[in-house]
Amino acid sequence: MGKHIYLNAFDMNCVVHQTPGLWTYPGDQAAEYKTLDYWVKLAKLLEKGKFDGLFLADVLGVYDVYRKSNEGALKQAAQLPVNEPTALISAMAYATKHLGFGVTVSTTYEKPYAFARKFSTLDHLTNGRIAWNIVTSYLESGSINLGLEEHFTHATRYDIADEFLEVCYKLWEGSWEEGAVVKDKEKGIFTLPDRVHPINHKGKWFSVPGVHLSEPSPQRTPVLFQAGASAPGRAFAAKHAECIFTSFPTKKVAADYVKKMRAQIAAEGRDPQSILIFNLFTPIVGRTEKEAEEKLAQFESYVNFEGAATLFSGWTGIDVSAYEPEQPIEFIATNSVRSALEKFTISDPDRKWTVEEVVKFVSIGGMGPVTVGSPEQVADFMEEWIDDTGMDGFNMAYVTTPGTFADFIDLVIPVLQERDLFKTDYSEGTYREKLFKKSHFLPDEHYGAQYRKTSQKESLT
Amino acid sequence: MGKHIYLNAFDMNCVVHQTPGLWTYPGDQAAEYKTLDYWVKLAKLLEKGKFDGLFLADVLGVYDVYRKSNEGALKQAAQLPVNEPTALISAMAYATKHLGFGVTVSTTYEKPYAFARKFSTLDHLTNGRIAWNIVTSYLESGSINLGLEEHFTHATRYDIADEFLEVCYKLWEGSWEEGAVVKDKEKGIFTLPDRVHPINHKGKWFSVPGVHLSEPSPQRTPVLFQAGASAPGRAFAAKHAECIFTSFPTKKVAADYVKKMRAQIAAEGRDPQSILIFNLFTPIVGRTEKEAEEKLAQFESYVNFEGAATLFSGWTGIDVSAYEPEQPIEFIATNSVRSALEKFTISDPDRKWTVEEVVKFVSIGGMGPVTVGSPEQVADFMEEWIDDTGMDGFNMAYVTTPGTFADFIDLVIPVLQERDLFKTDYSEGTYREKLFKKSHFLPDEHYGAQYRKTSQKESLT
Repeated sequence: MGKHIYLNAFDMNCVVHQTPGLWTYPGDQAAEYKTLDYWVKLAKLLEKGKFDGLFLADVLGVYDVYRKSNEGALKQAAQLPVNEPTALISAMAYATKHLGFGVTVSTTYEKPYAFARKFSTLDHLTNGRIAWNIVTSYLESGSINLGLEEHFTHATRYDIADEFLEVCYKLWEGSWEEGAVVKDKEKGIFTLPDRVHPINHKGKWFSVPGVHLSEPSPQRTPVLFQAGASAPGRAFAAKHAECIFTSFPTKKVAADYVKKMRAQIAAEGRDPQSILIFNLFTPIVGRTEKEAEEKLAQFESYVNFEGAATLFSGWTGIDVSAYEPEQPIEFIATNSVRSALEKFTISDPDRKWTVEEVVKFVSIGGMGPVTVGSPEQVADFMEEWIDDTGMDGFNMAYVTTPGTFADFIDLVIPVLQERDLFKTDYSEGTYREKLFKKSHFLPDEHYGAQYRKTSQKESLT
Repeated sequence: MGKHIYLNAFDMNCVVHQTPGLWTYPGDQAAEYKTLDYWVKLAKLLEKGKFDGLFLADVLGVYDVYRKSNEGALKQAAQLPVNEPTALISAMAYATKHLGFGVTVSTTYEKPYAFARKFSTLDHLTNGRIAWNIVTSYLESGSINLGLEEHFTHATRYDIADEFLEVCYKLWEGSWEEGAVVKDKEKGIFTLPDRVHPINHKGKWFSVPGVHLSEPSPQRTPVLFQAGASAPGRAFAAKHAECIFTSFPTKKVAADYVKKMRAQIAAEGRDPQSILIFNLFTPIVGRTEKEAEEKLAQFESYVNFEGAATLFSGWTGIDVSAYEPEQPIEFIATNSVRSALEKFTISDPDRKWTVEEVVKFVSIGGMGPVTVGSPEQVADFMEEWIDDTGMDGFNMAYVTTPGTFADFIDLVIPVLQERDLFKTDYSEGTYREKLFKKSHFLPDEHYGAQYRKTSQKESLT
């Protein structure tokens, strides 16, 4: 048996996620994001296709770097409007049994005491199918509207995030011992008070003395996703992440990253192969190569470059409207520390990207690779990507929704299953058990596991 | 036709809401609060019974006033563990069509920019069936764990809440004009940028310059519930509330409150009859009076007084363990400014409540009235309460769940319908339309309506 490929669908509670303009494509339902019907049907479709999870991106701000205005974002619905993602989960969870849900929440804008309760609640309600995609927020507009005095520097945001995780581990892992909840109807005791501990956290950023408000959920700590590609982001991932989400455009740079990242994980005392790495990926599949090419041509006729420039400028912090279309992007890059852009320059040092080329590149499928072809060709691409990079799976973005997912499930999944590259059924258990085939809890060697209480005190009499 | 009585079910995402000990009663499902199955079945049951809404309480803290410890709360599961309420909504909304959802969120612990997006999202996903129960948080343990330097005074919390609402109105009512979202597929324009406005809010507590992140939801502003009984609470309600939730134990004090409250509402330039007032209420109904009395006796044998004392001490801020059981409560009340306790002393100035009597009183149904009887007797009680107090309806708490609701729907609802005191079917529309039989938006005379943009600017070409 070959290595099975992991697959999440990548979506966002908004109209335009990664393909500006395609909401106008006939049959596309992206504008139905406001309805539970859209999400419940999508979840059922993904479970039919045996997807591991649905991965939901989020931003709490607007893309206003391009032309220093939110006009492009509004006109093109480029991640604006954008609704809150956790509100979607319970309807989808009730309609499915196995599908996992990865939800993006920023450590820069939340309080860990309230946040930890929210994710314990979601883990309870989904029977342990929740993952948290940890982000620190890159949009300055978010900080301003949330009343932060300043948009914290990259390093400061990761410093906050690190302590935020520490508080969460203490609440999730350490506050309520296993066996604290006895539900003893005879004695009339629900919880043994001496097995529930105040965490007494007093740090640089947070002060949380009390006990966790939720009883332990199936996974306690949700599965931890992280996407940092910068130096502090990689250090954070090596310490905390169980799954890493990347968006490298080429196998070359992806392979280089995987090698370095696994070494960095090993340096933290963790099994480097135990961390799953997912790359962004957008397939355009037809029954034949020709049909796929025709689809691509159709899609391209709906692409909107203002929307793409808006997203790219927001992601990188560079207002591309200030430059000529034919200007080489690496010239601009020297003025920026943003990690997103580094990927382009590091990835392919010989290629001279122009502003125009970059915007065109991201207009379908964002920063990640797009593959166009027959089911076999798409499966080939995926197989080779995994083999050549050492990655474990993909976060699959859509061009049209649910069309991209439906096509992929109809045409590519059977080919992958035929090659023994994809599971034919779900295994039992929580999201963590399904992904790692081990415990429903954090592995013992994980940083967060140190906060567990192992003492088994006398039970209350 | 008589006046129809409004009915919400009153629950909380926890084990023990208002009746400590009853989670051990045979068949009680309160301990199933962690499962979607419990909530979806409850929502369907309530919709079958034509309840207007499900009203969800919440606290972000623990009850640790009694004996200065959380031991009572943990042992008796007295609102601890307590999970997050908004996570429940989408599953229940998908399983129902008409039931409204009132959700408690505190203005002391949230950021209005993020909060407004969350409630717009819920209003979208429920097709306009969301209400917000505005609270300012009374548990000091919450503030400590959320990193606030101090537990703000009562007056300060309402000052913050007032500005919080102002920011929300600006985002919900003023930021996106009607007609801003055009979804023009021909021109490739989703939103007209010149019809979306930054709110430029800069106040004492919040600074929010930007645009709202969500497009307008069916109700824009959710239906606004508020429960303040103190002087600043009443002033806040007179200005902001569309529905008021009270928990008066007797008709006498309830009638007095209603009279004063409606006068205060009129003084704000609002129609005093347009605000719906709901009192806490717990029915114990049998097919006969005798059967109901037997049920009560059964329930009382499961009541837990440690849990009741824990809740009462938390609500009032008075550690009743410091007093003798037979000590009169009004002696203690002189040392307290808490509004909850004032209700007892104001309500019945001739009655000398002892500590023991008060704890016994709140052990079934919290601070509100409990009625025990045949379906006709319960209906009589409700009819007389509404007639004599000038109130509009009830937030109905349970003794056992879903038993109390199921019994009430089977036995009392038909009697109320027979008397034309309760609707036989839902009307169409949003929660606000169902409650007020008018617009899905805030009424024009509501304070929040002033923030609407009426200008119809030139459309973008």
